[in-house]
Amino acid sequence: MQNSIILISCILTGPFATINKHQIFRVLMPLLHITCASFPALTIKIMAPKTLFEAEKTNGHKTEFKIRQLEISDHAKGFTELLGQLSQCPSLSQSEFEARFADLVALGDDHHIAVVEDPTSGRIIATGSIFIEKKFLRGCSSVGHIEDVVVDKATRGGHLGQRIVNYLIDRAKAVGCYKVILDCTPELRVFYEKCGFVEKNVQMALYF
Amino acid sequence: MQNSIILISCILTGPFATINKHQIFRVLMPLLHITCASFPALTIKIMAPKTLFEAEKTNGHKTEFKIRQLEISDHAKGFTELLGQLSQCPSLSQSEFEARFADLVALGDDHHIAVVEDPTSGRIIATGSIFIEKKFLRGCSSVGHIEDVVVDKATRGGHLGQRIVNYLIDRAKAVGCYKVILDCTPELRVFYEKCGFVEKNVQMALYF
Repeated sequence: MQNSIILISCILTGPFATINKHQIFRVLMPLLHITCASFPALTIKIMAPKTLFEAEKTNGHKTEFKIRQLEISDHAKGFTELLGQLSQCPSLSQSEFEARFADLVALGDDHHIAVVEDPTSGRIIATGSIFIEKKFLRGCSSVGHIEDVVVDKATRGGHLGQRIVNYLIDRAKAVGCYKVILDCTPELRVFYEKCGFVEKNVQMALYF
Repeated sequence: MQNSIILISCILTGPFATINKHQIFRVLMPLLHITCASFPALTIKIMAPKTLFEAEKTNGHKTEFKIRQLEISDHAKGFTELLGQLSQCPSLSQSEFEARFADLVALGDDHHIAVVEDPTSGRIIATGSIFIEKKFLRGCSSVGHIEDVVVDKATRGGHLGQRIVNYLIDRAKAVGCYKVILDCTPELRVFYEKCGFVEKNVQMALYF
């Protein structure tokens, strides 16, 4: 079994990583489930890949960034101010932030907010979230819903948005979703096509 | 306080029920919150309105239908077969159905599957679901996502779909959502416009 884990790690991170990785992942998922049940500590790397990457900042310098889950301390690092670049997001008190944080943590693997922190400034410069909707359809399958993807205006162009979206897609795959969906303005269609999405339907909204 | 409850009930179900009810509901929400905290048993009717209605069946006869939450016994009443008219929904064993049912019940008010049972045949003839996504945006507000709305082919045309959607909208309002959204094919745009929705964005999808 341990050899299988090493083999899977090599395939996912080695020279084959750029070719047809989605298909390799799908074929290996049943094996991964066995692996995870037997050796959970050994498979964390496989279940949450691509969290470290280098990107060029606006000053031309390359910096190593890390995608990680939202933490309570991110309230003081500009998380809600960043969301304010996407939609209305008035300031929250520490207790309001912590209460909503607790609501979401209680959902476990069914909700995940990813963030990228700039190691130089200590500010949150990119975020995106996914929640997993459990269905009866398709043999009790699940759908991943990506929401609230935003990259700080000052750091756009470094593919941080694409990294965040890919990370969220990987999470949806890891929990067995059969698809991941999102709604966006028509202007962002091209961006999401680069992430592997295709236009599917229309989004309807009713505001109260 | 009791007088207030009676007044609200009269407004929501009386002669004013057809005029600008959305606005009345919004104005009364703060009062409803106080009411619910003080007299929870008395306000159930207000929090889940419009569950009983008459509709014409294909044979021309009017029947009284009731919208209610999905129950375990609905597995034997054709619930998954009805979903199969919407998308792939292979048969589920009783234990598979109960396991997914338990997953969703554990989400409490954040997930609700509505069904309509035909009182004559005992079959489920319409369904729709809503899940509540909690956000940090807009002062820790929430969004209602409507999914999997389907009416049995043999009973379409009796406005059951619109009743289900209105019921789900009311649930979203009752838990304080600032909007409700859904994705649909372009052909269903007109149907959802009749329910009060407007086209907002494009839906992108990535299938695994």
